[in-house]
Amino acid sequence: MKNISGYSKLSKEQKIDWLVKNYLHEDEQAKHELISYWHQDLETQKTLDEFSENTITNYFFPFSVAPNFLINGEWYCMPMAIEESSVVAAMSNAAKFWSERGGFKTEIIGTTKIGQVHFLYQGDIAKLKADFPQIKAQLLEGSKYITYNMEQRGGGVLDMELIDMTQHEPGYFQLKVSFETCDSMGANFINTCLEEYATSLKETVGKNPEYGIVKIIMSIVSNYTPQSLARATVSCKVEELGNFGAITAQEFAEKFRMAVKIAEVDPHRATTHNKGIYNGVDAVIIATGNDFRAVEACGHTYAARNGSYGSLTHCKVENGIFTFWIDLPLAVGTVGGLTQLHPLVKRSMQILGNPDAKQLMQICAVAGLAQNFAALRALTTVGIQQGHMKMHLLNILKHYDATEEEKEYALEYFKDKVVSFTTTRVMLEQYRSAKKEVK
Amino acid sequence: MKNISGYSKLSKEQKIDWLVKNYLHEDEQAKHELISYWHQDLETQKTLDEFSENTITNYFFPFSVAPNFLINGEWYCMPMAIEESSVVAAMSNAAKFWSERGGFKTEIIGTTKIGQVHFLYQGDIAKLKADFPQIKAQLLEGSKYITYNMEQRGGGVLDMELIDMTQHEPGYFQLKVSFETCDSMGANFINTCLEEYATSLKETVGKNPEYGIVKIIMSIVSNYTPQSLARATVSCKVEELGNFGAITAQEFAEKFRMAVKIAEVDPHRATTHNKGIYNGVDAVIIATGNDFRAVEACGHTYAARNGSYGSLTHCKVENGIFTFWIDLPLAVGTVGGLTQLHPLVKRSMQILGNPDAKQLMQICAVAGLAQNFAALRALTTVGIQQGHMKMHLLNILKHYDATEEEKEYALEYFKDKVVSFTTTRVMLEQYRSAKKEVK
Repeated sequence: MKNISGYSKLSKEQKIDWLVKNYLHEDEQAKHELISYWHQDLETQKTLDEFSENTITNYFFPFSVAPNFLINGEWYCMPMAIEESSVVAAMSNAAKFWSERGGFKTEIIGTTKIGQVHFLYQGDIAKLKADFPQIKAQLLEGSKYITYNMEQRGGGVLDMELIDMTQHEPGYFQLKVSFETCDSMGANFINTCLEEYATSLKETVGKNPEYGIVKIIMSIVSNYTPQSLARATVSCKVEELGNFGAITAQEFAEKFRMAVKIAEVDPHRATTHNKGIYNGVDAVIIATGNDFRAVEACGHTYAARNGSYGSLTHCKVENGIFTFWIDLPLAVGTVGGLTQLHPLVKRSMQILGNPDAKQLMQICAVAGLAQNFAALRALTTVGIQQGHMKMHLLNILKHYDATEEEKEYALEYFKDKVVSFTTTRVMLEQYRSAKKEVK
Repeated sequence: MKNISGYSKLSKEQKIDWLVKNYLHEDEQAKHELISYWHQDLETQKTLDEFSENTITNYFFPFSVAPNFLINGEWYCMPMAIEESSVVAAMSNAAKFWSERGGFKTEIIGTTKIGQVHFLYQGDIAKLKADFPQIKAQLLEGSKYITYNMEQRGGGVLDMELIDMTQHEPGYFQLKVSFETCDSMGANFINTCLEEYATSLKETVGKNPEYGIVKIIMSIVSNYTPQSLARATVSCKVEELGNFGAITAQEFAEKFRMAVKIAEVDPHRATTHNKGIYNGVDAVIIATGNDFRAVEACGHTYAARNGSYGSLTHCKVENGIFTFWIDLPLAVGTVGGLTQLHPLVKRSMQILGNPDAKQLMQICAVAGLAQNFAALRALTTVGIQQGHMKMHLLNILKHYDATEEEKEYALEYFKDKVVSFTTTRVMLEQYRSAKKEVK
């Protein structure tokens, strides 16, 4: 029986049993293994289970810290949850490098969020547009009971526009609403407001014979927030960059600028370039209980806003000054969602000095910029493989159950050779048989 | 001391001690909590630690399964690692729904990966272009020692082009190389090949006085793989969709088609639409040890390929047939990386029947399509908040240490009310004081 009715209603143990029976060859070891990832404190585990549905265990992400981030004159230690090797090391190196050159400077360019009610309207369009100011006032008045608390905190609805989308589909309009959601990411608040507007719109316009028929398609927050934007910058005199092996500071600055330029003009490169940026950003986003899918979607759309997908970072070398910066659009929360519920998220927040949402946005921008600096520095000097290969090699050695002694030998052996599963296996076989002979 | 030298060289315990001392107010409880997330088996923990650097503990993602996926006539149970509520429930519902309507159909449209050597060339451009076939042959010959194993497995280098990028920057050219990397994601293999080509290019062209100066900027895989593409489709007669409350099958199909159309034309909506798709995709990507940043970056760039950011899914209602599909570009591996190293990844693979890379691509496309179907169905019928609010409420109740009895009362109480931290707190206070009085 590979399919089932009522799975969600089974107990956690029953869920595991069904899975093991039908998809894991009734392997008791599999069951033990799944359970071995539970938190030992069952209350904590229950909290984690309730974040999702059909939860049977936990997937472990390595949780690391990258110290030595100097941001606007303050020291930060960056909590990072990421499974990819080299990212934390690269970020730590970039942090150290820039802490000796004035550190990161950050600012908030905006915090506006967007939500939309998409609807079809059949009726007098000119009248709808003409009367929109009054309709808007009525809708806003009708959501007071939802927005009151947010307004007390300094947020609320900023504006509401009627957008004519009829060039795309007959009768298609939007209410495009902008919000300030303070320290919450805002999705719940915005969606609640929007569903209220949709209901009001059907009442005030749809049931008024002077207008026409309103058919709501959907009401939903937009994860694209180009006006919720943090900037992080590093800058120093070119000569302060120092030499990188045989590469002078001046050559490095020029190559680096060129590497950024390439990501600005070539989508194939830009994708990988921005991917690396999100290695840094997402690790912090996850550690702080925010939603990395939302942050990714927003940033990549932003990267394509001018019609061609390009870099989120920019670089200039002018008058002997090297400047490198990122404009990172994102919506994050430091209240609501997982932020107060996941025990490790609380610790991440504490490590960061309990930032508010604006501070967290800036920290994320720094994480992205630091990662991108480290990646481009590696790419334009020694190449990416040198750094990755050691990690790759250690993973492969682990796979072949290499001893500490074999690891040491392998690290030396592969200093000037190409690492792969095959070359490592061959090396290990030779090493092991040579050792056997000696014995 | 908020900054430190040599942090990476400290032992794990020393790392935690430094962090607790300097960023967690010397709170012994914090230390115990960090350690409480270690795996009880220290060997397993060591494996996890080695995936990253400065690892101090694990971040727990809920690990769930969504059963009842009928894909090309076979049953699948989807392993999912995701921290967001409602996603697994929504996917399970979509799986069940479509399993009763013929299931998901999938196909692979391509598996080609891309890598680039970016370089500056100062010299006779016409000659470089004219001689490129011979140069290419030489470069390919020189990488045989790297590509041999991949060729044995049916992969290798497919093509190498010289791309003139001088319209963007004087002297800027690319070697654009396409690869087939079989069941590996390919980044390591591709990067190793590219660095070899860069070295060869400097030798064969850069040191040949007939050409000119070659300056390598960087050599790196592209995470943008528009030709590595999986398609998943669901389809049925419109009347088979059934009614959704007061909404008829025909109305639903039309609203649904319109919701997809909106995401095709409006970037604000498309971002959120695709974000939801990656709720499903990333959960499987993470559970199977693949790199969600790479998969996200690729898909979002693809969504912007025509100059305006749009939907990854498409829908048509023609001749009484409802058809909904996704074209998902992605590069995944079922060998290499974490796939054979993370114990839970091995289990995920086993749950999926140990798929090869092509099968996994198709499973991911199904995950994205299922999530999008569930999201759009909710949005176009009952609205998104109804589903989310229960989860949101449970999280808030958890925050206020609600008892099981209080939870039950709250679920009933909020059936027709707006859930927020404040309204829940007020409700709980009233309930608790009322209970006290009774006592």
